[in-house]
Amino acid sequence: MQLFIYEPAYRRLQSEIHAICPQVRPILIYKDCRVELDGRELPPAEFKPEAAWISPDLFFSPAARDFFRLLLGGPRLKWLQSAAAGFDNPIFQDLAKKTEIYTNSNGAAKSIAEFIFANVIEYFQPFAKRRDAQRAHDWKRFQFRDIAGTEWMIIGYGNIGQQTGIRARAFEARVTGVRRHPTGGEPADAMLRPEEMLDALPGMDVVVLTADSNDSTRHLVNADFLAAMKPRSVLVNIARGALIDETALLESLSRGKPGYAILDVFETEPLPKESPFWDHPNVRVTAHCAASSPMMEPRGDAVFLRNLAHYTAKEPLELQVRF
Amino acid sequence: MQLFIYEPAYRRLQSEIHAICPQVRPILIYKDCRVELDGRELPPAEFKPEAAWISPDLFFSPAARDFFRLLLGGPRLKWLQSAAAGFDNPIFQDLAKKTEIYTNSNGAAKSIAEFIFANVIEYFQPFAKRRDAQRAHDWKRFQFRDIAGTEWMIIGYGNIGQQTGIRARAFEARVTGVRRHPTGGEPADAMLRPEEMLDALPGMDVVVLTADSNDSTRHLVNADFLAAMKPRSVLVNIARGALIDETALLESLSRGKPGYAILDVFETEPLPKESPFWDHPNVRVTAHCAASSPMMEPRGDAVFLRNLAHYTAKEPLELQVRF
Repeated sequence: MQLFIYEPAYRRLQSEIHAICPQVRPILIYKDCRVELDGRELPPAEFKPEAAWISPDLFFSPAARDFFRLLLGGPRLKWLQSAAAGFDNPIFQDLAKKTEIYTNSNGAAKSIAEFIFANVIEYFQPFAKRRDAQRAHDWKRFQFRDIAGTEWMIIGYGNIGQQTGIRARAFEARVTGVRRHPTGGEPADAMLRPEEMLDALPGMDVVVLTADSNDSTRHLVNADFLAAMKPRSVLVNIARGALIDETALLESLSRGKPGYAILDVFETEPLPKESPFWDHPNVRVTAHCAASSPMMEPRGDAVFLRNLAHYTAKEPLELQVRF
Repeated sequence: MQLFIYEPAYRRLQSEIHAICPQVRPILIYKDCRVELDGRELPPAEFKPEAAWISPDLFFSPAARDFFRLLLGGPRLKWLQSAAAGFDNPIFQDLAKKTEIYTNSNGAAKSIAEFIFANVIEYFQPFAKRRDAQRAHDWKRFQFRDIAGTEWMIIGYGNIGQQTGIRARAFEARVTGVRRHPTGGEPADAMLRPEEMLDALPGMDVVVLTADSNDSTRHLVNADFLAAMKPRSVLVNIARGALIDETALLESLSRGKPGYAILDVFETEPLPKESPFWDHPNVRVTAHCAASSPMMEPRGDAVFLRNLAHYTAKEPLELQVRF
């Protein structure tokens, strides 16, 4: 079985890979974009992998572009494992057309949930005042706002949304998930469909966007949505910039609805230097880094190895994307 | 039934109190220290309450001193409800001798757990770097450290400890509770007795002190304890200053064990202006405010009302302190 794989990822997991699937023949792509099979350079015409793994470390590698170009120019695969969580990038859509089974990763969901939670806590707790009092040697008490008892709405209650909901509920927040097709098995206090969302919004202290970006979610957060938000509430977007009408958000922030916005993604990225979000006192801007945790790699590796075992044993694979 | 109560607390809950126990006759102490029964000033010689409630708002009132003096000078009570969580202050020990049933409050535990968690997250996530990058309009990614996969040791696994443990476990940390007499029912991945603590310490990323202050816990965190800590670990003390040998901690911090200390309590409070903790780069100093949440009061009220119902119905009371 020829498996197309980034060389550092192969080196990292070589012994596990061969223990799971002894018949693997890796097609290796190196950092410098060399491509080898069985220790010899592989001509593009002979590039015919059965499976491929877009490993977590590949995204930040100079070899990423060549990796994708080879895949897109090569023959159809039987299985493609991606370390990405999102699926709206056109490259993934094109890759999906070139493979029988496309599997995703949920390696990022738990870290993204921590990122969301940390940034909400930063809004709820007076970190800056505490720091300033410490600097002034000032023994001074500050009240903080509890997560307990708050109402959270999490829009797009998939993997990332549910990991966030589980954590918020442990803090005794009440969590409402929004999803087109609720399964009934979601860890939430209530589940709503998108058309029911607006009615529940005025009671929400924390609104988190974890939905896919597509035609139906474009500018989901528009002037009507924002007008329905609770004063002092916080809006968190770790999904895609297209979900928010940014002009409407800026106007609504000036009226205190929401009271604060935590924005990790934007309609244009990198966020232009002249964007008013940078200096807005009630906005936290981060650079599309909600998943920037060192655990991304081990979690992505673990999903790949489990799926390699399933594939080898001809069992159903985890986290298949359905088209 | 004569109930001694702080007047603003009585006014806040008057209808609930009389609905639960119609025969209540409140002895009211006002903010200005006036004491009244049935609308007339009560001479100290006639002060004979059956029960008393140290309500959450009383602690910050000018009437607190008179409230305690009257109780300590008066006859023995049948029931005393305290809104405090701790029990090491000599006043509480003296009060306990003057009552048949002494009940505590767990109203603070959940807020304290949030305080602990927030401050650990502040150490794990690059809030300051994110803030600085935003100020500079700099689209820059920073990695953060996950709570998931970390090892927590929580020393004194009572109410506060368990509330902290429940939240850490929802984030997929592994939690070891330390307690003199484990019940077996604690929400923890492992329970240890104090004498087993030191062996497990080198593996711990987060060590939280939530133990009582008494002779056996004095300077529990001493040079030996600190030497066994893991580099980059964090020590959190929201219990009592006496649990830590502060001189030993300062020396050990300079060797990176722990990597960071979150200290809300100190051997001397307020922390003296000249204390080296204020300016230590790896120390967060807060002013004994781990419970400074607006939810303290409603939670403390709720415990009192539940116990008033139990007392009226001659049922066992919640959260009794055993001597």
